[in-house]
Amino acid sequence: MIKQIDTDKVFEFCCKLFQAYGFSSEESRIISDVLIHADLYGIESHGIHRLVRYHDEITSGQVDVHAKTEIVHETAISACVEANKAMGQLAGSQAMKLAIQKARSSGCGLVTVRNSNHYGIAGYYTEMAAAEDFMGICMTNTEAICVPTFGSQAMTGTNAIALAMPADPVSFLYDASTTVVPRGKLEVYRKNGQPLPDLWALDKDGKPCTDAAVVIENIINKSGGGIAPLGGIGMLHGGHKGYGLSVIVDIFSAVLSGGFTSNYVNRKSDHTGICHYFMAIDYGIFGDKKSIRANMSRFLQEIRDSKKAEGHSRIYTHGEREAELMAQRKNSQIPVNEKTLEEMKNLADKLNVDFVF
Amino acid sequence: MIKQIDTDKVFEFCCKLFQAYGFSSEESRIISDVLIHADLYGIESHGIHRLVRYHDEITSGQVDVHAKTEIVHETAISACVEANKAMGQLAGSQAMKLAIQKARSSGCGLVTVRNSNHYGIAGYYTEMAAAEDFMGICMTNTEAICVPTFGSQAMTGTNAIALAMPADPVSFLYDASTTVVPRGKLEVYRKNGQPLPDLWALDKDGKPCTDAAVVIENIINKSGGGIAPLGGIGMLHGGHKGYGLSVIVDIFSAVLSGGFTSNYVNRKSDHTGICHYFMAIDYGIFGDKKSIRANMSRFLQEIRDSKKAEGHSRIYTHGEREAELMAQRKNSQIPVNEKTLEEMKNLADKLNVDFVF
Repeated sequence: MIKQIDTDKVFEFCCKLFQAYGFSSEESRIISDVLIHADLYGIESHGIHRLVRYHDEITSGQVDVHAKTEIVHETAISACVEANKAMGQLAGSQAMKLAIQKARSSGCGLVTVRNSNHYGIAGYYTEMAAAEDFMGICMTNTEAICVPTFGSQAMTGTNAIALAMPADPVSFLYDASTTVVPRGKLEVYRKNGQPLPDLWALDKDGKPCTDAAVVIENIINKSGGGIAPLGGIGMLHGGHKGYGLSVIVDIFSAVLSGGFTSNYVNRKSDHTGICHYFMAIDYGIFGDKKSIRANMSRFLQEIRDSKKAEGHSRIYTHGEREAELMAQRKNSQIPVNEKTLEEMKNLADKLNVDFVF
Repeated sequence: MIKQIDTDKVFEFCCKLFQAYGFSSEESRIISDVLIHADLYGIESHGIHRLVRYHDEITSGQVDVHAKTEIVHETAISACVEANKAMGQLAGSQAMKLAIQKARSSGCGLVTVRNSNHYGIAGYYTEMAAAEDFMGICMTNTEAICVPTFGSQAMTGTNAIALAMPADPVSFLYDASTTVVPRGKLEVYRKNGQPLPDLWALDKDGKPCTDAAVVIENIINKSGGGIAPLGGIGMLHGGHKGYGLSVIVDIFSAVLSGGFTSNYVNRKSDHTGICHYFMAIDYGIFGDKKSIRANMSRFLQEIRDSKKAEGHSRIYTHGEREAELMAQRKNSQIPVNEKTLEEMKNLADKLNVDFVF
């Protein structure tokens, strides 16, 4: 069952929760903003649904509430940030702010972050850059779940790539994992008792496996197998390309920062070691910004206006669907699962925060 | 039939051909080097097999042999280059040189190129950066051949992305189209009379089409349909991700340079308008280069050493297979198709160049 609840009220509730853990008022607003943003976008898997998970990470010590991030290497255009186990949303928004500052003064800013934690939706940070009329790029590694082509052992994470480029009437916003599907999709199939498509997942011997329950158990127990890269198992449909893209995400986030590559990230230890990458580009370094923005808007419009496949009435450009949902939900209501509401109530009780829904 | 021919001799032959068109000795060496590089790597589709196509482009005026590229916008870290219909290999290598120079002085260099032509394998240019111990990135658009999710009309090109990151004993070199397969793969299926896999191609109404001949005809006649993005037709296997990646390539190459996006690139006109993007990063802007290079080498080795799928004895990292082939073929011989040899002989006759094979 889904209940519609007031967006502003959920935001305030989340802020109070995070303050109860010891985050400052400003920090709590940032974390809550990233979470609610996902719900406004219809990406419920990364929204308030994760409050319980963050609770566990904070109370177990994986996330250090009082962590201060440090810049360990810096140039006019770049920085490497040691997050010291900070909340991912705080390390992430600080790092993107730094990238934006550098883009403002030097044309572009490239910032790597190590020893952080899960930071919510990658797209949030790229939109910080787009809000300044810059291009924004963001990547993060995660615990290994993706099996390289011809392998049977997960070596890279879901390793999302996000890119925002300002345009009118709606910016381009790409935000996607480099696996064929994220783990949440397997959970939906398991819940529905459906067999997985052949291309998606591998058992512990590296053979295609359509039993979602088996794959998820193996992932949890780290007994081998996992999810295929974008393009699926093998090379026929380009799985080696998705595998390469997932390695690229680990290069930018972990290799360049000197942090943990996905195969060392461990969500069960008290130090996940998750790494991110942020980039902001003032696209005026290539020419007149108005013309470039107009080029972008025109190209996206041409794609939306191009001929549709039989049975389809609309071609979406990336970020369009999310922007529409957000327009509906902002200053209004977001749909929340009853189970999530119950979890929120439990957290409120534990932390002595008013539960107002 | 395949004949083995002397690598150095083919190189010298190509140099003479290009000089016969009016390119300088140095220009001819650059173009030939890019071409032979593809053959050394086993990417025959982008090697001397294309001499006939380049002949047509040069003699038809699509490529201007005497074109001078111009920098139309420049900052310490960036440039936008107007190629004035130059040979793609010349515009490409000049632009990557410029990106490398900027990386040397400012930490990174980002260069867009418009109104160029086909430039061969993208990986060549990223390796120019890797040879300087920099990270290299390169993208190019092409004539539209890729149909957006829910569409029936090709709007983006094969739009390859290449990235090289130095490592030992072999650098990481990713170079792949953002379509599920390149067009050449369809031609192989047509030749063999095999039906295409369901996910690969669409007919003019945007329905899945397994008849390679139909798809290729439609592409040639621009009557609709084309190849699916990486992830295949629809959203089930992530086709919307590949579609987004192909748009990203057009953003970097065409939108930022003010050139033709893939849907305007026309290989049948006297002005293809192909656009590229080049980036070099001195990865020392993030920390100690030796440590970063060691991180990279370790991570790639861990992937290669990870558990294999049943029936597979080896996991390749990107660029490894190509580096091995090159080691065999350099200073030795490359395999050339008899049909290609015949084409080379015809060109030699036309241009009054000695045919020595």
